[in-house]
Amino acid sequence: MDKRTKKSKMNEDSDINYTWSPERMLEMILSEEETLKNDWLTRGMPQLIDKLVTNYEKYEEIIHLDGKDLPSKRAVIGITEEFMTILFPGYHGKIDANKSHIKTFLGKTLKSIYEDLVEELNKSLKYICRRVKTCPEDVCLRRAQVVAKEVLVKIPEIRTLLRGDIQASYDGDPAAKSTDEVILSYPCVLAIATYRIAHEIYIRGVPLVPRIMSEYAHSITGIDIHPGAKIGKNFFIDHGTGVVIGETAEIGDNVKIYQGVTLGALSFPKDRRGQIIKGLKRHPTVGNNVVIYSGATILGGETKIGNNAIVGGNAWITSSIPSSTQVILAPTKLYYKDINSEKKQSEI
Amino acid sequence: MDKRTKKSKMNEDSDINYTWSPERMLEMILSEEETLKNDWLTRGMPQLIDKLVTNYEKYEEIIHLDGKDLPSKRAVIGITEEFMTILFPGYHGKIDANKSHIKTFLGKTLKSIYEDLVEELNKSLKYICRRVKTCPEDVCLRRAQVVAKEVLVKIPEIRTLLRGDIQASYDGDPAAKSTDEVILSYPCVLAIATYRIAHEIYIRGVPLVPRIMSEYAHSITGIDIHPGAKIGKNFFIDHGTGVVIGETAEIGDNVKIYQGVTLGALSFPKDRRGQIIKGLKRHPTVGNNVVIYSGATILGGETKIGNNAIVGGNAWITSSIPSSTQVILAPTKLYYKDINSEKKQSEI
Amino acid sequence: MDKRTKKSKMNEDSDINYTWSPERMLEMILSEEETLKNDWLTRGMPQLIDKLVTNYEKYEEIIHLDGKDLPSKRAVIGITEEFMTILFPGYHGKIDANKSHIKTFLGKTLKSIYEDLVEELNKSLKYICRRVKTCPEDVCLRRAQVVAKEVLVKIPEIRTLLRGDIQASYDGDPAAKSTDEVILSYPCVLAIATYRIAHEIYIRGVPLVPRIMSEYAHSITGIDIHPGAKIGKNFFIDHGTGVVIGETAEIGDNVKIYQGVTLGALSFPKDRRGQIIKGLKRHPTVGNNVVIYSGATILGGETKIGNNAIVGGNAWITSSIPSSTQVILAPTKLYYKDINSEKKQSEI
Repeated sequence: MDKRTKKSKMNEDSDINYTWSPERMLEMILSEEETLKNDWLTRGMPQLIDKLVTNYEKYEEIIHLDGKDLPSKRAVIGITEEFMTILFPGYHGKIDANKSHIKTFLGKTLKSIYEDLVEELNKSLKYICRRVKTCPEDVCLRRAQVVAKEVLVKIPEIRTLLRGDIQASYDGDPAAKSTDEVILSYPCVLAIATYRIAHEIYIRGVPLVPRIMSEYAHSITGIDIHPGAKIGKNFFIDHGTGVVIGETAEIGDNVKIYQGVTLGALSFPKDRRGQIIKGLKRHPTVGNNVVIYSGATILGGETKIGNNAIVGGNAWITSSIPSSTQVILAPTKLYYKDINSEKKQSEI
Repeated sequence: MDKRTKKSKMNEDSDINYTWSPERMLEMILSEEETLKNDWLTRGMPQLIDKLVTNYEKYEEIIHLDGKDLPSKRAVIGITEEFMTILFPGYHGKIDANKSHIKTFLGKTLKSIYEDLVEELNKSLKYICRRVKTCPEDVCLRRAQVVAKEVLVKIPEIRTLLRGDIQASYDGDPAAKSTDEVILSYPCVLAIATYRIAHEIYIRGVPLVPRIMSEYAHSITGIDIHPGAKIGKNFFIDHGTGVVIGETAEIGDNVKIYQGVTLGALSFPKDRRGQIIKGLKRHPTVGNNVVIYSGATILGGETKIGNNAIVGGNAWITSSIPSSTQVILAPTKLYYKDINSEKKQSEI
Repeated sequence: MDKRTKKSKMNEDSDINYTWSPERMLEMILSEEETLKNDWLTRGMPQLIDKLVTNYEKYEEIIHLDGKDLPSKRAVIGITEEFMTILFPGYHGKIDANKSHIKTFLGKTLKSIYEDLVEELNKSLKYICRRVKTCPEDVCLRRAQVVAKEVLVKIPEIRTLLRGDIQASYDGDPAAKSTDEVILSYPCVLAIATYRIAHEIYIRGVPLVPRIMSEYAHSITGIDIHPGAKIGKNFFIDHGTGVVIGETAEIGDNVKIYQGVTLGALSFPKDRRGQIIKGLKRHPTVGNNVVIYSGATILGGETKIGNNAIVGGNAWITSSIPSSTQVILAPTKLYYKDINSEKKQSEI
């Protein structure tokens, strides 16, 4: 089907030094010997479709037709957004302050979250369940209903936690002019709120949905908090882009971290077949009242940052830090060079 | 309401070593003793609603019912997008090139921006105003109208500045094939254009709206420029993810910075009550013709980077750099290890 | 038109130490001498429109009225999303698993991608073409049709590559519970899939469209892969925020990189007129089976990372690394300070 022409050679990926230029583009256009055969849409495309169907059959692990036990990304994002309207009422659209109107708003939104959440949780549970074991018909649905209820019941508690996080943001950043500014314009609010919801689902053993939620927040904020992490009260992340908090990280109360901080894994033990062992504690434990400045990397499941410690910017930490200790990079040696004198020298 | 079961114990956050696994998930599903009581939706949820209403009343600082003096995030993002269609006409949809059609387009779009902006500025001003002082009824609205007009009148000047920024992007990046490619696909264009608009609102004393604008650009581009910063002509940010430019940073003309650069604060002086003092100059001053390579961090309100200086990648700078000076990290010591010989050794 | 008032002075950008405060805001509001003249909308705005039209005429390089030869950002993003539904069927909405339904889905979606792609490719080709050379009337359209066909025909091959990338993600991350979780929630999937499509268009000499696609993925994921880069099989990027892979970078098979890794340029040779020379090999070459940990920066077109090498976190590499070599930063010196004893000292 694919007639080889001179031009086709130019397309070869092996042409190492190719970068785009107008000249190359024109050369390609004008050397165009092959023009689309009139019958490609009617004859070529059906062949492509057959190839794709074969490919779908061959690599069935990256296809999910029917999707009956796969949660919908769009639905999960919608649920996350609905949670935000309940957690921060009035910040995502007006609500009439009249108490009976609030109850109507809450009743309607909670019911909607409950129904959508049960559906996505049920699919996520069945997704694993049917691969492992044959369960009674409706056991996943019943579990989904219980988990959805338990997460909803946690909302007042989560809201109380978020109030502490927002106060910590205001107290911790001189640029913050009001807690309302924090709620309306600080990326950590979406990242932490989404984490606190997703974590409640994660610890109840439901796969997929919590990670779809956390990746949604990551895509908006640049802050990547795994729903498995454990995070205490009054947590503040400033700026946030590039922050990574791993699945088994634990963070105490009153912790403040800056952009680009990683709480990551040091190495991955492998089993006898060379497969990475999953499920171990791989990420650090951070005590209370710790501050971690921008770009610091803290690695390893055995690494503990003691209470009241301060970790300096760009520090690379792979072993524990005692309580009440400030650890900073030794002042990096900097080389200075006078640009003008260099120019003069090179002119001589 | 919440019957404790064996399963519930497993949910406890104190279960330190829990990470998700299919086995744990199945254990949870099958140990499910509690199934949702049929009456939870009718009896449990109203209790939850009551708890939430109590929580709303208790933590009123993170609730904004009625929202009569809170700007709408969605509306502010919409205004920002409309500004882009005026700043870069034709790049966000076709406009008929006929001059009278252009005038019609401009008249319609400017009027729409003006009206929406007045509404959001008015709410933002009233938001602070009514907390501090009782003003004459319509003084916030009148101020909002003047600010909106003054910002609109700045558009030609902002467009001229952006032209310089785009030319600087093209000149500064060998990968850029045309200024149109820059406008269509360089994240710094949205980040800098949004900054230049938001800054005009910020310096006119309006809260909230400028920060919602800058956080919108941050979420799309990963570039976090506070609207309070001062930035000269011909500014280029390459790639941009992770860039942070603080509220009191000042940047001269012809400056080029790369991904991951921070212009941040060194420390936050506190007042007698231990509260961080707000409003001081906390971020560095960068001269003209400066280049700052990726990952460099420059901190402190007293820190000045002289004209024509070059700051090397990953440098950590907390004191001033003279003009025409190149400062680079002393070449970092690297340890090399032959992986194969190590393997052989460990096999012995 | 702009009456100067006391307040206007306060707006001056030269007022270096201005940061927003409620007091300043109120001062501005109450010193408001100028209120909007009633006739601004009818008399002032037309003057602004005239100024803008003049500005549009003056800076015609950042205007694109009519837009007849400029690809539409929105359309290109839509095409990218449609590609994803074909590459990962069922993950972005249900498809009936019945084979004839799959064929109907494929026929409809491929035809839609083909038509939209031809339109955007044609505009992108004409965009350069008419600036450089007068071609026969429909040569760009014919070339666009051939390129669109050639890219579509590549889909099965791309899907096979992506299967390897997804398996590499699952194998390389202990937090990954299933390949479906990877597809639904790992940002590298969108980034790499978009790259593999955009690269096929790039090497066929079409400007603009590939970069709009890659910047779309960058804005969602924080991963910035230039479509000109060459990337082998089984590629995995974990977390990904801040990753930059330059236009002329080359990456072998089975490579794993972490967040914040840059494969960048070292310096830009300039021509006699001081203009940066475009089109040279500026970015590194990475061999097979290489791991590059978070925050590492590898620069320069001559820099080669040998097969099986391991590059440690935060390493700054500007020269080649031999095969089977692990290179890590010499353990950084850290300074420790007991915070409590310091406090005691300062109290004495």
